[in-house]
Amino acid sequence: MPRYESAPQLTNDYITSVWEMLPRYVRPTLLLQSETLSAQLGCDITIASETFQYTGSFKFRAAYNLLSSVAESRIVTASSGNYGQAVAYACKLLGKKCTVVMPVTSAQVKVAAVQSHGGSVDLIDVQKISRNERVQQLLDEQPGAFSAQAYDDYRVVAGNSTLGMEILNAAAFDVILVPVGGGGLSSGQVVARDHAGARTEIIGAEPQPGNDAARSLRSGTLTYNEREPATIADGARTLGLGRLNWEILQHGVADIVEVPDDITLEALRRYFRYLNLKVEPTGALSLGALMTAPERFQGQRVCCIVSGGNVDPTVYASALLGE
Amino acid sequence: MPRYESAPQLTNDYITSVWEMLPRYVRPTLLLQSETLSAQLGCDITIASETFQYTGSFKFRAAYNLLSSVAESRIVTASSGNYGQAVAYACKLLGKKCTVVMPVTSAQVKVAAVQSHGGSVDLIDVQKISRNERVQQLLDEQPGAFSAQAYDDYRVVAGNSTLGMEILNAAAFDVILVPVGGGGLSSGQVVARDHAGARTEIIGAEPQPGNDAARSLRSGTLTYNEREPATIADGARTLGLGRLNWEILQHGVADIVEVPDDITLEALRRYFRYLNLKVEPTGALSLGALMTAPERFQGQRVCCIVSGGNVDPTVYASALLGE
Repeated sequence: MPRYESAPQLTNDYITSVWEMLPRYVRPTLLLQSETLSAQLGCDITIASETFQYTGSFKFRAAYNLLSSVAESRIVTASSGNYGQAVAYACKLLGKKCTVVMPVTSAQVKVAAVQSHGGSVDLIDVQKISRNERVQQLLDEQPGAFSAQAYDDYRVVAGNSTLGMEILNAAAFDVILVPVGGGGLSSGQVVARDHAGARTEIIGAEPQPGNDAARSLRSGTLTYNEREPATIADGARTLGLGRLNWEILQHGVADIVEVPDDITLEALRRYFRYLNLKVEPTGALSLGALMTAPERFQGQRVCCIVSGGNVDPTVYASALLGE
Repeated sequence: MPRYESAPQLTNDYITSVWEMLPRYVRPTLLLQSETLSAQLGCDITIASETFQYTGSFKFRAAYNLLSSVAESRIVTASSGNYGQAVAYACKLLGKKCTVVMPVTSAQVKVAAVQSHGGSVDLIDVQKISRNERVQQLLDEQPGAFSAQAYDDYRVVAGNSTLGMEILNAAAFDVILVPVGGGGLSSGQVVARDHAGARTEIIGAEPQPGNDAARSLRSGTLTYNEREPATIADGARTLGLGRLNWEILQHGVADIVEVPDDITLEALRRYFRYLNLKVEPTGALSLGALMTAPERFQGQRVCCIVSGGNVDPTVYASALLGE
């Protein structure tokens, strides 16, 4: 495995220890082969679904690995979505207290999910204060609290790499297709591949509205969106990749496919129709990438990662009806 | 295991052989524990979901076990739903040809699913000819064809019993809650319990509109609905239990809970919200039974069987929105 300047702690020994410990605390991913999708797209497709992971997304792998390794008992984080739930549930299991900063516009179901795990929700008006500023305020008010990063942390990347471990153990895939937001999940797959010494290509699937990672890869320089991108894939509404994530992805991914939102929604509908799988829009990005560039994957053995399943019923119903 | 007059073939030796063979051809059920539902309902709930079984429902267990045991290469059956898909796919795997009689009003997605597995669909106007009459016509036209029953056949019951085997192997449940239509799945659970020598109670979950099985159990006589019941649980729109199924259930189930349709739909929504699980209305009946009579299950270790996940997007979207 390469050495990374921004995280010298990311060693083979460290990954080995995480792969030994973390699987005892997470649910194994659900692997599903699909004859129908394979026939439609001309390749051999397996889905690795994290929709039944604790708190409904892969983020629990990251949150549990990170928070079980820090001594602090008070945790602060900013998340409007899956990471907040994952941190809240991990804190509950680990006997820590957490505060999750969320925009006041967050879906009620997401606020309720954090609270149901015993987390405190701190609602902010993002027009008036940024999430990071508010996290800093809370850290100033609570000396000794720990700020949990959602992707730019080697312990997050290592936690996410356990999903890659499960996938690589299951079959000799040519490609793993993985949604890209801040780059935590995708860089975890690169680390897993390199640690296992496998030759599997890792290919990112990024929403076309908000294609900072694809642009970064093309230009060779970490590039940011000017504002939070307006994409249906709400888990990928990030300004840019984390520093460590970029360092890992720059030479670690073979490509990043930009997926238009309408194809992401069509992928969501195919999961519903052909696999009985409820996925959130962000989770549908990897199948969306296959549908965007099917010729790229002809005849290959492809694993599509579904990152999570948490989506509001009204959003999901609209997506199903194609509205 | 008791001897059943209407199926002397249903012996311990036969069940042992099916439990040995069939798991090689079916997907294991997905077992999910739910802290949230357990807290809401005051018992310890595990879901056994057949939504990821081949063709999206438990029916594949029955169809494959039945059709792999008959010599005939032409199969005829009547089904507007999951059994038709399961028979078509089992026939594809076994190199047989099948015709599925379906009402002309069947959802297009269900017709397409049968056809996608290579099955012929025979559409009928049920105002003019019954499904059974049409099956008989086809059998007369195709001498040597085999008529595949959906529930009233010992090989169907034995196939379905493999789900019970998986559940009983997983944990010492006090109760297995199981949807009841024709009684094929529920009688399979009774047979599994008795064959395994377990003490688990088997309790049926039947739609209140069309409560023939509950009435049969109360009266001690096999009782029929006057017409196909108008329930949202389309997999349970049966006139009555099969003869063998009734013989097994009469002394084999502890109870049958009648579930109002609005509670079935609320159960479907809870699966969506708390488990990321897409279920069809019939599949939601067992959780619906728990919600209908929660006091009956306080403190118990309950396994709720989700029989399948196939549902039209429009029906599902309406259910999500509570329309």
